[in-house]
Amino acid sequence: MKVITFGEVMMRLSTPNFSRFSQATQFDINFGGGEANVASSLAIFGIPASHATRFPNNDLGQAATAVYKKYGVGTEAISYGGDRLGIYFVEKGAAMRPSKVVYDRANSSFATLQPSDFNWEEILKGATWFHFTGISPAISEGAAQACLEAVQTASRLGVKVSADVGYRSNLWKWGKRPNEVMPQLIEYCDVIVCSKGDAADMFEIKPNDEKGSFKSVCKQIMERFPKVKKILTTKRGQISASHNTLSGRAWDGTQMIETEAIDIPDIVDRIGGGDAFMGGYIYGELTYQDTQKALEFAVAASALKHTVEGDFNLVSVQEVEAVMAGDVSGRLKR
Amino acid sequence: MKVITFGEVMMRLSTPNFSRFSQATQFDINFGGGEANVASSLAIFGIPASHATRFPNNDLGQAATAVYKKYGVGTEAISYGGDRLGIYFVEKGAAMRPSKVVYDRANSSFATLQPSDFNWEEILKGATWFHFTGISPAISEGAAQACLEAVQTASRLGVKVSADVGYRSNLWKWGKRPNEVMPQLIEYCDVIVCSKGDAADMFEIKPNDEKGSFKSVCKQIMERFPKVKKILTTKRGQISASHNTLSGRAWDGTQMIETEAIDIPDIVDRIGGGDAFMGGYIYGELTYQDTQKALEFAVAASALKHTVEGDFNLVSVQEVEAVMAGDVSGRLKR
Amino acid sequence: MKVITFGEVMMRLSTPNFSRFSQATQFDINFGGGEANVASSLAIFGIPASHATRFPNNDLGQAATAVYKKYGVGTEAISYGGDRLGIYFVEKGAAMRPSKVVYDRANSSFATLQPSDFNWEEILKGATWFHFTGISPAISEGAAQACLEAVQTASRLGVKVSADVGYRSNLWKWGKRPNEVMPQLIEYCDVIVCSKGDAADMFEIKPNDEKGSFKSVCKQIMERFPKVKKILTTKRGQISASHNTLSGRAWDGTQMIETEAIDIPDIVDRIGGGDAFMGGYIYGELTYQDTQKALEFAVAASALKHTVEGDFNLVSVQEVEAVMAGDVSGRLKR
Amino acid sequence: MKVITFGEVMMRLSTPNFSRFSQATQFDINFGGGEANVASSLAIFGIPASHATRFPNNDLGQAATAVYKKYGVGTEAISYGGDRLGIYFVEKGAAMRPSKVVYDRANSSFATLQPSDFNWEEILKGATWFHFTGISPAISEGAAQACLEAVQTASRLGVKVSADVGYRSNLWKWGKRPNEVMPQLIEYCDVIVCSKGDAADMFEIKPNDEKGSFKSVCKQIMERFPKVKKILTTKRGQISASHNTLSGRAWDGTQMIETEAIDIPDIVDRIGGGDAFMGGYIYGELTYQDTQKALEFAVAASALKHTVEGDFNLVSVQEVEAVMAGDVSGRLKR
Amino acid sequence: MKVITFGEVMMRLSTPNFSRFSQATQFDINFGGGEANVASSLAIFGIPASHATRFPNNDLGQAATAVYKKYGVGTEAISYGGDRLGIYFVEKGAAMRPSKVVYDRANSSFATLQPSDFNWEEILKGATWFHFTGISPAISEGAAQACLEAVQTASRLGVKVSADVGYRSNLWKWGKRPNEVMPQLIEYCDVIVCSKGDAADMFEIKPNDEKGSFKSVCKQIMERFPKVKKILTTKRGQISASHNTLSGRAWDGTQMIETEAIDIPDIVDRIGGGDAFMGGYIYGELTYQDTQKALEFAVAASALKHTVEGDFNLVSVQEVEAVMAGDVSGRLKR
Amino acid sequence: MKVITFGEVMMRLSTPNFSRFSQATQFDINFGGGEANVASSLAIFGIPASHATRFPNNDLGQAATAVYKKYGVGTEAISYGGDRLGIYFVEKGAAMRPSKVVYDRANSSFATLQPSDFNWEEILKGATWFHFTGISPAISEGAAQACLEAVQTASRLGVKVSADVGYRSNLWKWGKRPNEVMPQLIEYCDVIVCSKGDAADMFEIKPNDEKGSFKSVCKQIMERFPKVKKILTTKRGQISASHNTLSGRAWDGTQMIETEAIDIPDIVDRIGGGDAFMGGYIYGELTYQDTQKALEFAVAASALKHTVEGDFNLVSVQEVEAVMAGDVSGRLKR
Repeated sequence: MKVITFGEVMMRLSTPNFSRFSQATQFDINFGGGEANVASSLAIFGIPASHATRFPNNDLGQAATAVYKKYGVGTEAISYGGDRLGIYFVEKGAAMRPSKVVYDRANSSFATLQPSDFNWEEILKGATWFHFTGISPAISEGAAQACLEAVQTASRLGVKVSADVGYRSNLWKWGKRPNEVMPQLIEYCDVIVCSKGDAADMFEIKPNDEKGSFKSVCKQIMERFPKVKKILTTKRGQISASHNTLSGRAWDGTQMIETEAIDIPDIVDRIGGGDAFMGGYIYGELTYQDTQKALEFAVAASALKHTVEGDFNLVSVQEVEAVMAGDVSGRLKR
Repeated sequence: MKVITFGEVMMRLSTPNFSRFSQATQFDINFGGGEANVASSLAIFGIPASHATRFPNNDLGQAATAVYKKYGVGTEAISYGGDRLGIYFVEKGAAMRPSKVVYDRANSSFATLQPSDFNWEEILKGATWFHFTGISPAISEGAAQACLEAVQTASRLGVKVSADVGYRSNLWKWGKRPNEVMPQLIEYCDVIVCSKGDAADMFEIKPNDEKGSFKSVCKQIMERFPKVKKILTTKRGQISASHNTLSGRAWDGTQMIETEAIDIPDIVDRIGGGDAFMGGYIYGELTYQDTQKALEFAVAASALKHTVEGDFNLVSVQEVEAVMAGDVSGRLKR
Repeated sequence: MKVITFGEVMMRLSTPNFSRFSQATQFDINFGGGEANVASSLAIFGIPASHATRFPNNDLGQAATAVYKKYGVGTEAISYGGDRLGIYFVEKGAAMRPSKVVYDRANSSFATLQPSDFNWEEILKGATWFHFTGISPAISEGAAQACLEAVQTASRLGVKVSADVGYRSNLWKWGKRPNEVMPQLIEYCDVIVCSKGDAADMFEIKPNDEKGSFKSVCKQIMERFPKVKKILTTKRGQISASHNTLSGRAWDGTQMIETEAIDIPDIVDRIGGGDAFMGGYIYGELTYQDTQKALEFAVAASALKHTVEGDFNLVSVQEVEAVMAGDVSGRLKR
Repeated sequence: MKVITFGEVMMRLSTPNFSRFSQATQFDINFGGGEANVASSLAIFGIPASHATRFPNNDLGQAATAVYKKYGVGTEAISYGGDRLGIYFVEKGAAMRPSKVVYDRANSSFATLQPSDFNWEEILKGATWFHFTGISPAISEGAAQACLEAVQTASRLGVKVSADVGYRSNLWKWGKRPNEVMPQLIEYCDVIVCSKGDAADMFEIKPNDEKGSFKSVCKQIMERFPKVKKILTTKRGQISASHNTLSGRAWDGTQMIETEAIDIPDIVDRIGGGDAFMGGYIYGELTYQDTQKALEFAVAASALKHTVEGDFNLVSVQEVEAVMAGDVSGRLKR
Repeated sequence: MKVITFGEVMMRLSTPNFSRFSQATQFDINFGGGEANVASSLAIFGIPASHATRFPNNDLGQAATAVYKKYGVGTEAISYGGDRLGIYFVEKGAAMRPSKVVYDRANSSFATLQPSDFNWEEILKGATWFHFTGISPAISEGAAQACLEAVQTASRLGVKVSADVGYRSNLWKWGKRPNEVMPQLIEYCDVIVCSKGDAADMFEIKPNDEKGSFKSVCKQIMERFPKVKKILTTKRGQISASHNTLSGRAWDGTQMIETEAIDIPDIVDRIGGGDAFMGGYIYGELTYQDTQKALEFAVAASALKHTVEGDFNLVSVQEVEAVMAGDVSGRLKR
Repeated sequence: MKVITFGEVMMRLSTPNFSRFSQATQFDINFGGGEANVASSLAIFGIPASHATRFPNNDLGQAATAVYKKYGVGTEAISYGGDRLGIYFVEKGAAMRPSKVVYDRANSSFATLQPSDFNWEEILKGATWFHFTGISPAISEGAAQACLEAVQTASRLGVKVSADVGYRSNLWKWGKRPNEVMPQLIEYCDVIVCSKGDAADMFEIKPNDEKGSFKSVCKQIMERFPKVKKILTTKRGQISASHNTLSGRAWDGTQMIETEAIDIPDIVDRIGGGDAFMGGYIYGELTYQDTQKALEFAVAASALKHTVEGDFNLVSVQEVEAVMAGDVSGRLKR
């Protein structure tokens, strides 16, 4: 069993505590990316996982590599080259003040990758699952092309494919519109994460029943992309910058499976929560072979991620299963 | 458009996190003062503002000056002299344990100022608004006298005058009682912040209707001080040391304008919240020329201040307006 | 008036903020122990208190001693010897993620103590109260024996004896079962803290009325241990890792005295909360000679402990009494 | 009297203490640039100074602006636009391990400036002195063009011009070679800092006497650039990463003026040492009108810079003059 | 054996690392005073010692008390009252940049003491040695008067008296000149620390032999103050802010006893070095009854103090004796 | 090419900066061990290396594992079990004050290992080199036995064997004396690090020529252990706790090869310096196949280790080669 992920890793520089950018005298350093976070979730849960990306061949690229090694993510599919590691700056919000992100990712080593930097035959050999997101094709033509080669190879090799179809309005600047690129990629997918908004932005699919239901969107997606067998989404209740609720839904072509909402007060770090959901779902599907349980594991894993600083979801399977089983009391473990 | 403020600036030394004084091995350094906080609020919102105060001519006085410069507050009306910068020590509370303040402000450079240290003609030249608080006249005879000269000059030059009439029971040690001093100053004011308690302590005015209403207090104040056109106050719901609610009221001589209460969970730093309200109100009145909107801006600005460490309300007009418009979800801004 | 306590003190090494063990690059250092925490509570409240324990004769043993001196706990009954200071590692939880403790206390200087390391005649001379817990007899035969000698001596000298009968399933490895050891010790006690679960684990006493009430357990305990005059317990509502509620109950042989629950949001550090309850109760009983008031003081003291980092309950009698009187608003004290 | 400087400002992110990049969990944040450091030196010494540069119109650009305001540097000539703030990463060396710099400055707001972003007539109006360095023309064609317009305008307005002719081999990637660009700029200069190596790299001028002397280089430079009246250079003795010595030399067309070497053990931060030299020299020339004294002030200022963390030379004129007068004992000042 | 010391304790707030005041965002907190440092030196060496001083009755006074308790200094002679704890701010120098101290000690609880705050009969009962310095009589008339009562009582009770006759030019503002006050106090002393400069400033005694020798000063002092049996002084070689050398001299009425100089590179904190010398000397004289050995112990103790942050000389007798015996290699102790 | 190392890894808890144990409120966390440090040196230099050890199966054992993974050390030979991770506490010295280590390693998972925890056939399969030290056999009988099995297996498989024969007087408590155990192990070694002192302590071999030379010791060792082909040692000049010099010597059976001494001022962390020497030597021998060059690489690597905090020698081959080539100036690398 082995999972391969592909996507950009950025250095996240965040102001400590709740300081605003103009106050900060230090940044906390983290590394992460939507797809690498899935790989690290899985590696931490004990599922072999490797991440394919491109880093500059300098001290920062090496520091990033070391962090993935630390948490057991395979780094053999990392390509070195290009000029810089993408960066994003984060300021943590509180109460009614939102967290704020300033991106500085243009011209990164990932953005300037050549499809030939990745030998997908070799990378995907023996893999069980390949995961990517809608961010990579949004970054550059090269990244979009690499994605396409990856999913085609995966499909040919019988590797299951998943995608988190997240639309990022501040990307997609390289010349094509999402709906010129994404459909071609989704054709090869077995499982996708896709909200109503994403479906509209990416595929121009809108609810077509009276209630404007997510189900009606799912049906249309599956008609258009017959390989897709599961469509997942999360529902986040946004009470304040540090208090959310989270539940999940999965359409399996027949029924809408749902989880109860988990209350997440005192959020430590919500960045990567969606990736933890995806990582949890893949773990669950590979382990339980039951969509309901996989979805519950995914939501519990995502909820726990909100209690951990940084992009890595540093929680054990037992911890996720305890939350899944309803223990959200946070009672001291001696 | 230019706003002038006058008052003491102290160095705030606070124990990190929630440590009690006996645990602390470090103090976090901030600078602030009730009136300077109004000036910095305005400067950060883009309204030219200068603060008049007195600092010792030493490294600490210079460090304090530099911080005001950093956030764009004019420092040309700062007078240098005297022996020391006033200090206050703060320990942040949590849950049912209150935050605690230990003052060490006696004999500060501000307390020992001479009225002649400030050339009000020059300082107020071209100003739109002058703001002071009930703290300055409570500190020393010199400071009270400087206040009086300032409001008289402002009045003569047609500069609008506002005062936050806050009674501090641990001051007023220089020989006179508040009601021997304050009325003379309030005569020159156009806008005041004054709670029922302040009215009793400062002017011996108490509610005179059955409900003991704030409105009845406002009416009496306006009768006694005919220049006063607006009386503002905030209402703080105190759920715990780190969870408050806040709303505002304004009496304009005719009607009582009110705002909805904003919920403020996960308070980062509530010191300066009242000053942020005043700064927000002045911004609002100068910008919107509408008391309701000014009051709503003021409450939103004050709520946001509770999410920022230190005395400076480091939030943008857009951020305040988003909260004013009801977005208190703290949803991540990418 | 003087209180003597006896038990192990460990070095607590906790990861800062909410970091997981694998993320931490630093540990915060605290020292504490269930019984020493009672002594320090009392010393901080102004009641003379000394703690008997055993420390290694090295820099860490000296550092631990210095911390007790700092907060006024008598250190004259500390015996030096053995190989190491027991350690426990703590990771602070958040929301639904529990705090986690990893113990490393085997072979500590305390565990390897000889009963002869403590001259109880001398230690207890002039004492009013002696306190121990169920942890000490669980650690080693030597510690259990020292406990027995201590309570026998206390009893002979007319010193009141209390015990917190807490069952720790991960101890009791030295050869005897709790119910072979504890009853002998409880015979000498005047006051005990004992939950329904503890009664079952330690004395094999279970509720014998229909409701399975705590009262029925208390009655059986008092029948079996006629010297016991008060049985206390706390009830913790576990909303999340950082939000609890706390109330107390005391059976005095006649009636069940209860307190209202105090809400404890935004917990800073809950470790030592139970010890703060016991310290508060002893203070209350010695000061008010009224079980209801003592119990209310105990619960208020325990609630406040949750707002203070570390094992020491660094709060004043006035602060506890304010909470006792119902002021849980956390309103800023200037 | 007013000095204008022009050049890129970068965010410097350095690992704390002596950590290597792979160890760091935090970066310390500083802002600086070769020319801005000259402006801040002068502002701190009390000479009015403004810096012209280009910042992105985001939180980081605003944070950078605030830091210059804090230390009194005029920010009215800052143009906002472009995509990003240039960054460089620093790891501080020790003993025989050198400090290491990783640049990430490509495509910065400065690099993508348009000459029309700066209205030199207005910026230089009333100025006494204009300073730039060889870094700006090395960054991009736009920056080189802006430099040229600046020196031409300065020359026309009678503003003295200085340049630090530092060759950076990792720049100059925009299409022209230094000697195609620099000579044109130096024609307008009155004072330059130029080592033997710089002269070779920038102007292809090499020593032409037997000793290969710096003097022979200076003579050739002055022949070629008759407006140049002073050529300065520093000599750094490199004992270890944290122990250097520093002396200065100035050729005034007639004689070689030299200073004694100052010993700099226990270096706190050597970055910006050369800029502090230039800032000191300009201060000295404007104040003493004596090249020897100006040079001594410059070397003393530069030596002191090595004791201050960050790019800003936070030392007073009195402190520099004390070192100039030979007091290098570091004796405690009470 | 018991030593009593008397003098002001201040809170020392120092900027971390080498930051200048304008850079600092935090202060490190230490407590210390010239005389209290002698008491803590002795307590740490195992000699019972108590310190008499006056603290404000607030959280800061209590925090200061706790720190002395921590290190074993008796706090029973502390009087509580007055308004504030004196403060001094410190910025640590490096290389040729001196450390800098800003005092804020006026109107402290110590400065406003009444002689009646101290019952010297009781405080000195059973004492072996009383120590004070020239700082206390310089602070206020009350402090000078308390000193006089203390030395008179000590003398009457047969308690040995020592004084560090340090002249502080920024004190002595209460109305009398040093030579109107000090001689009266020195009359009661057995041992004094007094440099040539101090002798001139305090007693108007200057060298009267050709070489201008310290010995000639000592002889005059002993003639004038016949009770004085030892005159000590240290000689500090000031190589840089973080590199000094230190040796000691003692005149015993007959001969000049000297020590070799100890090299002190990499100074961690030199504040309190002189007090560590005095503490070491008292320890040495009480322990070895040999002036040469006492002086060597004093110099070694003082040298070691330079390696410890804060005012407390946290070194053991064994560590001092190792340095005394010539082991200055700093070789790792496993 | 692959190197296997075997030995205990401990958690190193060190007080920050130069604080003494009684001052510290935090510990910095590092992991290291004499043999694991050799493996990490090699992995960082690019030589495949795995470390065999035993960790407790808890969060600390996992955290330790993660750190080795981070730096590329193979962790497949780690056995999990036992009760605890050994710990050592470190206080960093300065000037004449030595660094101090307090060990707490008894009963660690490593000390209680069973030889059967390691399948040496499998671990050493394909290995080039096996390295151990004299610490492991000193810890427990099990560890000594495991060492013996390892060297016997290595020998049988033709794997080169090296040992750092370091005598630790505070170990060897399990029943046998070094010379009853070590000779048997050294018989299988090709390369050893052994000082004159070690030879005496471990083998009772003393110099037998007039000069008491190291060479005469080497000759005797080689006679007794004919498989040994190289005997290495370092010479440390101990100027102060933060200033050493280091050179190396190697006896190859014929000649004494020596290096020049490298000056190491401003030591950041000297722990692990000897291991860095060994790691450097193995790298050098495997790479250059030249003892002189290997020795020079070893000394340069060790010198650089002193500039890096923690046990990992985080320096590149290029950096070591630069020092080897004589560049010890620490000149800034841009």
